Amino acid sequence: MMNCSKRMEFEAKYEVWVKYINDALSGIITENETPAKSIYSAMRYSLMAGGKRIRPVLSLAVCEMLGGKIEDILPYACAIEMIHTYSLIHDDLPAMDNDDFRRGKPTNHKVYGEARAILAGDGLLTYAFELMTGSMLDALNNGTADIDSLKRRIQAVYYIARAAGVSGMIGGQVVDIESVDMIIEPEVHEFMNRCKTGALIKAAIMVPVIITGQDKDVMDCLEKYSDSIGLAFQVKDDILDSEGSMELLGKRTGRDVQEKRSTSVTLHGLDEAKNKLDCLIREGIAGLERFGEKADFLRCLALYIKDREK
Amino acid sequence: MMNCSKRMEFEAKYEVWVKYINDALSGIITENETPAKSIYSAMRYSLMAGGKRIRPVLSLAVCEMLGGKIEDILPYACAIEMIHTYSLIHDDLPAMDNDDFRRGKPTNHKVYGEARAILAGDGLLTYAFELMTGSMLDALNNGTADIDSLKRRIQAVYYIARAAGVSGMIGGQVVDIESVDMIIEPEVHEFMNRCKTGALIKAAIMVPVIITGQDKDVMDCLEKYSDSIGLAFQVKDDILDSEGSMELLGKRTGRDVQEKRSTSVTLHGLDEAKNKLDCLIREGIAGLERFGEKADFLRCLALYIKDREK
Repeated sequence: MMNCSKRMEFEAKYEVWVKYINDALSGIITENETPAKSIYSAMRYSLMAGGKRIRPVLSLAVCEMLGGKIEDILPYACAIEMIHTYSLIHDDLPAMDNDDFRRGKPTNHKVYGEARAILAGDGLLTYAFELMTGSMLDALNNGTADIDSLKRRIQAVYYIARAAGVSGMIGGQVVDIESVDMIIEPEVHEFMNRCKTGALIKAAIMVPVIITGQDKDVMDCLEKYSDSIGLAFQVKDDILDSEGSMELLGKRTGRDVQEKRSTSVTLHGLDEAKNKLDCLIREGIAGLERFGEKADFLRCLALYIKDREK
Repeated sequence: MMNCSKRMEFEAKYEVWVKYINDALSGIITENETPAKSIYSAMRYSLMAGGKRIRPVLSLAVCEMLGGKIEDILPYACAIEMIHTYSLIHDDLPAMDNDDFRRGKPTNHKVYGEARAILAGDGLLTYAFELMTGSMLDALNNGTADIDSLKRRIQAVYYIARAAGVSGMIGGQVVDIESVDMIIEPEVHEFMNRCKTGALIKAAIMVPVIITGQDKDVMDCLEKYSDSIGLAFQVKDDILDSEGSMELLGKRTGRDVQEKRSTSVTLHGLDEAKNKLDCLIREGIAGLERFGEKADFLRCLALYIKDREK
């Protein structure tokens, strides 16, 4: 695979962006003293539990590469992270994956109870749309949005809604729960991965492309990158479930085999899954060619997805 | 109370609008043959289970009264009904109210299982935003939206997100689950009702006010109407739980007392709850004065909320 000489520069920048995103998220969902205060605590608990923030970092990195304004993208990046977080909360519920740990901490329902965890997920999902439309109104009120930029922002919200909904993440999720204890066809398995994990990662990449108003060629290249690394992310997750440890991952591992789930590893074996991962990362990086050095961060990010240990 | 001479006219019109809304909703969530088809069935099951459609009917009626175009409001009216439906699916879950029947039919999780019911709720909530932003893009593409009308539409989506989220419905819901088996302060009880039920009903009324771009006076009058009937709706629900029957309501009744919930009836007694209901309906109707005969449908709708038996 590629040699990434700018690894340290990448890591430093990644850290800066994670802090930037964490500060923004922390300022959005704050503790309060209304009678409904416990729901804010529950939402904040999972939102600030220290995720990798890969999706919002991707949005900011693509935005910067394309010469867009980071502050224009931030509400969408945060909204995508909120949607990702809600999906984890619901995913961990007893009726779904029944997980007790996530990111090394007790899952939301373990701390706040199932009812509040369901509502905290609903709350984060809804807040994502409040945040995006609220930021559009701000831009309108301070005169920084004309009709074309407004159209692109609406397209971005639409794109995110589709990526998060039944044509994307939720659609993949339902196939996933139905695949427990049975073997599924390879094309159904690919559909599941593209939807469940790929769609929202793709949205994180495509939203800055949409908002900064790029031509078709740029759009095609970044679609190629996003399709590949979105799928790669799930293949790597499957490999980590098979090889990783609870200590490193902060969540239970080895469940895919126990529960006879159809994953890249259980369906095709560990070696083939690793080959597929390499191949996807290579394909993704190939999509970045036209951007030259400007795409170094995104190249390193692709390698980080491949090499991550959690 | 007022005499509503136009009752039959109201009922005929209500029926026409319910059919119009049902046709629209039925065309939005259709069966399909993707690997994720079961989620579409689950969403459709609850969405088409024959609700009263009070919220979308309110939106259409207010729009007509204000001289707006019904087709401009329809996506928002349908989105609000989808949000209402998702909230019922999640509300009925074992971890929440644990209800087996809704509208005389088995609840979503009884038919599709808990995991799919959670996802079906998530799917409907997300689809509501896809629908609204998609309709904005349609309006932009066919040239029927200028920047001012676009701004009003974005304001409407923002309003709906807030009404559905932690500052509205979800906030009320969390107070509700926390009030089981304990007595809550009257102001907390009012907060709960205004949020849990009132907020989305208010949004249904205010969205056409926002989209048709009304002046402050019209807005104030319809806020008064919506605040009153939104709260009245919940008081009536509390009365029905205490007085109604499973046959009529299509769901379990008498639970508020059994579970020591804080409702208008358990806190203040049946007579006082009925007085409060009368008073709220009267206040709501008073808000309609300036609209003259044009508001007859909304007056009758207020009385319908008071007199409904399910």
